[in-house]
Amino acid sequence: MKLSNRAVDVQESPIRKLMPYANKAREKGIDIYHLNIGQPDIETPKEILNEYRNFGSKILAYGPSQGLDLYRKNLMRYYKRHNIELEVDDIVVTTAGSEAIVFALLSTCNYGDEILIPEPFYTNYNGFATMTGVKIIPITTFAVNGFQLPDSNVIKKLITAKTKAIILCNPGNPTGVVYSRAEVERVAKIARENNLYIISDEVYREFVYDGSSHTSILNIKGLKDQAIMVDSISKRYSACGARIGCLISRNKKLIASVIKFAQARLCPPTIDQLAANAAIDIEEEYFKDILAEYNERRNLVFSELQKIDDIICVKPTGAFYIIAKLPIKDSEDFTRWMLEKFSYENETVMVAPAQGFYTTTNLGKDEIRIAYILNVNDLKRAMLIFRKGLEEYKKIRKE
Amino acid sequence: MKLSNRAVDVQESPIRKLMPYANKAREKGIDIYHLNIGQPDIETPKEILNEYRNFGSKILAYGPSQGLDLYRKNLMRYYKRHNIELEVDDIVVTTAGSEAIVFALLSTCNYGDEILIPEPFYTNYNGFATMTGVKIIPITTFAVNGFQLPDSNVIKKLITAKTKAIILCNPGNPTGVVYSRAEVERVAKIARENNLYIISDEVYREFVYDGSSHTSILNIKGLKDQAIMVDSISKRYSACGARIGCLISRNKKLIASVIKFAQARLCPPTIDQLAANAAIDIEEEYFKDILAEYNERRNLVFSELQKIDDIICVKPTGAFYIIAKLPIKDSEDFTRWMLEKFSYENETVMVAPAQGFYTTTNLGKDEIRIAYILNVNDLKRAMLIFRKGLEEYKKIRKE
Repeated sequence: MKLSNRAVDVQESPIRKLMPYANKAREKGIDIYHLNIGQPDIETPKEILNEYRNFGSKILAYGPSQGLDLYRKNLMRYYKRHNIELEVDDIVVTTAGSEAIVFALLSTCNYGDEILIPEPFYTNYNGFATMTGVKIIPITTFAVNGFQLPDSNVIKKLITAKTKAIILCNPGNPTGVVYSRAEVERVAKIARENNLYIISDEVYREFVYDGSSHTSILNIKGLKDQAIMVDSISKRYSACGARIGCLISRNKKLIASVIKFAQARLCPPTIDQLAANAAIDIEEEYFKDILAEYNERRNLVFSELQKIDDIICVKPTGAFYIIAKLPIKDSEDFTRWMLEKFSYENETVMVAPAQGFYTTTNLGKDEIRIAYILNVNDLKRAMLIFRKGLEEYKKIRKE
Repeated sequence: MKLSNRAVDVQESPIRKLMPYANKAREKGIDIYHLNIGQPDIETPKEILNEYRNFGSKILAYGPSQGLDLYRKNLMRYYKRHNIELEVDDIVVTTAGSEAIVFALLSTCNYGDEILIPEPFYTNYNGFATMTGVKIIPITTFAVNGFQLPDSNVIKKLITAKTKAIILCNPGNPTGVVYSRAEVERVAKIARENNLYIISDEVYREFVYDGSSHTSILNIKGLKDQAIMVDSISKRYSACGARIGCLISRNKKLIASVIKFAQARLCPPTIDQLAANAAIDIEEEYFKDILAEYNERRNLVFSELQKIDDIICVKPTGAFYIIAKLPIKDSEDFTRWMLEKFSYENETVMVAPAQGFYTTTNLGKDEIRIAYILNVNDLKRAMLIFRKGLEEYKKIRKE
């Protein structure tokens, strides 16, 4: 029986595909520091976890397709604190940010249409593009200048009659880049002039450092019908398993279409929405500590990376990722080698080879992504082992 | 800003689109018996609800993309009780049955390919087909013989070079039909001879009456690579809000593809999977009472419908729906009228007009679907009001 072309073509997760090597290392009794995945080690706030204990109904029923009214109303208050003024019907609750991106692509693009995305980008955009039959055209950015956007002319040259949207991930996974207001305005201008939607993935909104601030696409003027924001509670509250996100737009026709797609799948999980709702007001007390913790980790990883000769890495100002260009040829080979052949005092480190974050052939082959999602002591140890591994790998591969 | 063609084309839920009329009736102080939706009134088993209180981890983390191992292993035991022998890796846990159908369509069909579905069918298949760019070719069935499948030759004539799969909903929503083993074998033969997949939606597996038994597609021989089963806990345990389903196939290449699509959306909700897992062993004690209850409701609704002159309705043997062909011209007009103009002792009834369950133009215009998801007393009252409404409607529309 033949599978569909898209079933054959859809990208295997480049992060998860190395897991068998990690499993084998563990079977040999080697402990692994996982810097390869975006699963935070931060405890989920008790407000969320307790809410799962508070469900009072006797029937676990469907909710509305656009999400629970209670939760959507409270989300308005959360966004207001971030200076984003919304009406309740601008918000559609989704099964995590993933579904919000799929709905955004389905609503804006026909099969075969194109979207621009700065690369390196979140690999799962590839999967969503395959599912929806949309072609990703990369706007290539580079480690040497911290993955800032290129000149507007470079972006404009990529636009064709088929281009329907630009996806911005801000703050960025996997780069940690935070686009300044001026940069977001610049992209907005291109979108306005070319009738493009901007799909802004802002799931790391709170994770900005060094006093820089986050610019939501919903706060750019003159973009009412073009701005689509995608959000999720996964990283914000370390609640990845809840699968609660949302899609927000002030374009009422677009929202009406999104709701039709949402009706087909009936509703997002009910109790998880109530749990997300319980987190609405915990922000300030919660985030001060979390941000201080992540900032310390970021500083640590960055300064440890600086000890490596010939590394190229600009200090990122957002999210909890850092991409480094290493003095090696093949970071996937290196990552596998760290799991298969290397250990230091019975421990090793797993990172994410960065090639999977690029669509342009051969880009990122010498880069890795580190997710700084371990506590400072573990991170310090992990970075020491990483450096030792890299030194040895360089010697061996030279032979 | 232009929306995509599919955003414009995607069907609005024909069941939910009449809700504004229901809301207006309620504002006038009229109570509505809702027989229009498949939300059971049965209490969710305490084993499931309690499990939400038992989550012991401090971090609500991502689970594996294919679902929690613990849950998949226990699902094997559930299916074994239904004489379906599986390996754990035949099972991919999904965010409800909806996602399982989307994954099945993505994996088997290219954009523009065709699938055969007996109509009338579950309306959300339209949404999933639009999302995945697949065209539904209906196999028309009729109220007069209880929506049994037509001759094999009728089905074969619908097959083209683009046909990739047949979707069977068994037991059927909205028809309540249960296909006999001979009928399923007959469809399997057609699939084998024409290299088609069979996507079998078996979410109502337990809901069969009159001593008839359910035939799973996974129990048909010689269909290893072609059989894909879609399942969900929503109706089984009255847990529609949990959003937990699964896709099962013994075709290992197909499962590998499904997992790649599943990786893009990371994982199904974690705690809801644990809740679903807690229900694995409650089956026998739980279902005896539930089935007796639904059977009583079915008998009641059917005998009440028989009191209507010129009704066409064969007693269904599965699920909790019944389609009736009424002596009227436009059941959507009738349904709206029941909400806008009619009440009896300040109460009215909402049913689902059946036209939305058909793709063939003008079919089902004189049919309605009743979901018997209320207790016997309420149902009895609702059917009385329904009959009184229908009598008055017939008089008024004749004038």
